[in-house]
Amino acid sequence: MIEVGPNSYGKSAIRLVKVDRHVTPHRVRDLTIAIALEGDFAASYSAGDNTAVIATDTMKNTCYALAGEHLTGAIEDFAIVLGQHFLAAGSEVERVRVAIDEHAWLPIGAAPDAFTRDGSSTRTTSVAVARDGLEIRAGVTGLSLMKTTRSAFEGFPRDRFTTLKETDDRIMATKVSATWAYGGRAGVGFDSSFAAIRSTLLETFADHHSVSVQASIWIVGKAVLERHPEVAEISMSLPNLHHWTVDLSPFGIENDREVYVSTTEPHGLIEATIRRSD
Amino acid sequence: MIEVGPNSYGKSAIRLVKVDRHVTPHRVRDLTIAIALEGDFAASYSAGDNTAVIATDTMKNTCYALAGEHLTGAIEDFAIVLGQHFLAAGSEVERVRVAIDEHAWLPIGAAPDAFTRDGSSTRTTSVAVARDGLEIRAGVTGLSLMKTTRSAFEGFPRDRFTTLKETDDRIMATKVSATWAYGGRAGVGFDSSFAAIRSTLLETFADHHSVSVQASIWIVGKAVLERHPEVAEISMSLPNLHHWTVDLSPFGIENDREVYVSTTEPHGLIEATIRRSD
Amino acid sequence: MIEVGPNSYGKSAIRLVKVDRHVTPHRVRDLTIAIALEGDFAASYSAGDNTAVIATDTMKNTCYALAGEHLTGAIEDFAIVLGQHFLAAGSEVERVRVAIDEHAWLPIGAAPDAFTRDGSSTRTTSVAVARDGLEIRAGVTGLSLMKTTRSAFEGFPRDRFTTLKETDDRIMATKVSATWAYGGRAGVGFDSSFAAIRSTLLETFADHHSVSVQASIWIVGKAVLERHPEVAEISMSLPNLHHWTVDLSPFGIENDREVYVSTTEPHGLIEATIRRSD
Amino acid sequence: MIEVGPNSYGKSAIRLVKVDRHVTPHRVRDLTIAIALEGDFAASYSAGDNTAVIATDTMKNTCYALAGEHLTGAIEDFAIVLGQHFLAAGSEVERVRVAIDEHAWLPIGAAPDAFTRDGSSTRTTSVAVARDGLEIRAGVTGLSLMKTTRSAFEGFPRDRFTTLKETDDRIMATKVSATWAYGGRAGVGFDSSFAAIRSTLLETFADHHSVSVQASIWIVGKAVLERHPEVAEISMSLPNLHHWTVDLSPFGIENDREVYVSTTEPHGLIEATIRRSD
Repeated sequence: MIEVGPNSYGKSAIRLVKVDRHVTPHRVRDLTIAIALEGDFAASYSAGDNTAVIATDTMKNTCYALAGEHLTGAIEDFAIVLGQHFLAAGSEVERVRVAIDEHAWLPIGAAPDAFTRDGSSTRTTSVAVARDGLEIRAGVTGLSLMKTTRSAFEGFPRDRFTTLKETDDRIMATKVSATWAYGGRAGVGFDSSFAAIRSTLLETFADHHSVSVQASIWIVGKAVLERHPEVAEISMSLPNLHHWTVDLSPFGIENDREVYVSTTEPHGLIEATIRRSD
Repeated sequence: MIEVGPNSYGKSAIRLVKVDRHVTPHRVRDLTIAIALEGDFAASYSAGDNTAVIATDTMKNTCYALAGEHLTGAIEDFAIVLGQHFLAAGSEVERVRVAIDEHAWLPIGAAPDAFTRDGSSTRTTSVAVARDGLEIRAGVTGLSLMKTTRSAFEGFPRDRFTTLKETDDRIMATKVSATWAYGGRAGVGFDSSFAAIRSTLLETFADHHSVSVQASIWIVGKAVLERHPEVAEISMSLPNLHHWTVDLSPFGIENDREVYVSTTEPHGLIEATIRRSD
Repeated sequence: MIEVGPNSYGKSAIRLVKVDRHVTPHRVRDLTIAIALEGDFAASYSAGDNTAVIATDTMKNTCYALAGEHLTGAIEDFAIVLGQHFLAAGSEVERVRVAIDEHAWLPIGAAPDAFTRDGSSTRTTSVAVARDGLEIRAGVTGLSLMKTTRSAFEGFPRDRFTTLKETDDRIMATKVSATWAYGGRAGVGFDSSFAAIRSTLLETFADHHSVSVQASIWIVGKAVLERHPEVAEISMSLPNLHHWTVDLSPFGIENDREVYVSTTEPHGLIEATIRRSD
Repeated sequence: MIEVGPNSYGKSAIRLVKVDRHVTPHRVRDLTIAIALEGDFAASYSAGDNTAVIATDTMKNTCYALAGEHLTGAIEDFAIVLGQHFLAAGSEVERVRVAIDEHAWLPIGAAPDAFTRDGSSTRTTSVAVARDGLEIRAGVTGLSLMKTTRSAFEGFPRDRFTTLKETDDRIMATKVSATWAYGGRAGVGFDSSFAAIRSTLLETFADHHSVSVQASIWIVGKAVLERHPEVAEISMSLPNLHHWTVDLSPFGIENDREVYVSTTEPHGLIEATIRRSD
């Protein structure tokens, strides 16, 4: 026998901009939204029965239709509204996942209506709404960070294929994606929590001495958990974007950790969850 | 208390090309490899202890070093060799994930040494090697497909935010990513299985009548399982890349399913696993 | 005094798909169109005078509106129609540039309505229509080619910063963009010319011995001009996507032009026009 | 007869990072460099004669070798050094083009060694060095800007294919690429000029009322020329990234310029040079 296993469907890359002109400067919200439904949809596959299939076009319309009234605060709050809407939209829906990326725009000078996009990183959220509860994650993506010293990598095992030299002073460069889970909705101010957690992440990264990317993840993640009790766990994905010291000795030039070649292929990739234990 | 939860580390985007000049035409293998280790690595995070951390640079070297002797057949076989190598490389390693994409190059005419890349889709594999066994998946990614008729979407529910019209004749366009699990290693000829499964996928897509993307996934997936007993399950991810009929009536021009605007944002996204039931 | 210098405006990334269902298999045309107008538009800049500014939205509409009747043959012919339309649309318009990329879809088996995209390269055209005549270029872009032998690079000058070794046997890999000018419209069958020129390009590439990317451009370009009298000149842009032989000697492994690392950063870039002299 | 026409060759995508640890915070320079040589190189094509062909690998080495001593100030100064070096490197070289993009890194807090990349826009330069002089351009790329009001588009001509409504209040969103020519080297402090010109560009954009993208280019470009006498001309390329007001009336919801769909395909493209007239 052949059957339908795990499945989901929805709409991705919904691009929505909302402008609030009643404040000075205007408030610009620039979102990319993805919605996915899970539930009792096997018949839509195996029997071609569309009677329960909320059109993904309707999902898109709903985002725009609800934005006026409900996109007034944090993206987490809007994601919850969207999730609850679709959970109620059909009895077959058991779980709704809503992911929102928010692209930041900063006012230019004192103008009320002019903005420049801050491409340094994007704020993210992913919310899962089910009949028995909510899961809320928040995060950042595309946050490029570099340490120009206080980064080392030593003491690793050597085998016949090892050529990497130990170093007590390398460049560490990475592009952070991090998401953290809020333990519950109660009492979390999503905007203030986000700002505070992002600050902790940046400050801890700036201040710490790294003996490996792994150790950096631990130090940053532990600081987030220690300072922000609303965070239950944090998952981080850090590429190690290698900066290799260029060997200029063939040219009679000394290069004491000054000139590097920046690379993206290949790159290390370190991923871990730091969490509270019982 | 704070602890390290699930974690992995490795090297991604290892670009490896191997040329076998002993055959005519030459055989070109063009791979992108990613390796990730899982296991008892918590101390590398929380204690900054690198004694068990096989350098990702060593992983890269190993791929190149083993390619001469071991990259002689299917990418699945090479992935297994790499996985077993790293499983044996340290007692802390419990599971090795190796993902390989193979980019196809086709000979040009009768020349033994000239090739053009077939960018139509990429063959993929992901292998997980652990002490207690192997998991082997194969697949394709980036396979763009279109049906110009025999595609419909009707009978879906309508609510106050629904504006999509029912249609019994639309364009369906998608970019398929599919992976399937081989039930075991024994008896699977990875190259011949891949070719046969890819053919089934294309043929079934070409021949079927689609009442939804969901139904298409079912029909294609079911055919793969029925015709290829070595496949235990297949997971497919299909964006619905909408092609909208352009309304030319303001210009006094009839447009009977002839001229479309092709879009990528937003897009539907339908994902499901089709599997054998007990 | 400050003035408006050279300027143009138009619409880019117009995505148009047309399906002809009256043939078997159906004919799919998948185009990306860009239109730019040049002419007496300085007042639209310096005086904010829009009276001559054909809206770019109108340009987009026009592409869709004219496709039914006029997109029946080669993209060059459709580009000419569009160019002439906009040249006639306003007295301020002096020159219209129309660029069209055509993405190829190949029928799957014998099905009349199922297609897979051939991502190997894209056919391009750019047409400039002015009151005093037409310029018509055709081309390809994204054509990845590789030679696994018969490629060398020797005899180049050495200075204190030269470390590259001479080689009489390297991999040459590139991603060709080429455009050629048709001497005039008369007598050119754009589809047949395109097919023949593309074949010449591939065949010549496959058969030649390359002593440098520059020499390859010459050999291929010269062949195109010799075999295709309708071509007045051909411009080619070839990145040199280096494939470096991996040094496996530290591991006691010989690597006689077998295992390579494929790279994209940095890359050589060789660009030249080959033309008929008087 | 067939001959070699215009041609150039060089190395692109050279990724170079330099760290100056003698200042607090460290100074990070993150560059992407492209070098192209023009001159008497026809024989390298038509005769396969490499005796004058400075290897592009040598170009790459030279960038790294000269960075220590010469990358101490503005990217324009480093580009000039590189250009002069290659102009002197071979008698066949007649003109050297050097393009450098500088990616900005901002210190995090008070840490001397931690940085976050400012992805908001990239500073660019392109320098052409020939025996008879220098051309120096500077610029920005990837600068996303938005106006949430004071942007209109009215009074444009209407023909049978025009459906766009006139509007006196739309969102204008764009991603600016601009380059400007310095009249000469003398007296230009490249860093201070760049900062001042970028400020003028942002301030003028923020303050002006736009009746079209064309008018915006004029207003911004004119301000740059008026305030910065060292600028001879400025060329700007502005996509018009349309934000369409969503029609929510089918849902009984009023949408008075509040909720928009952000798009990238198709987009307007407005390009002009604003210059001093004689």
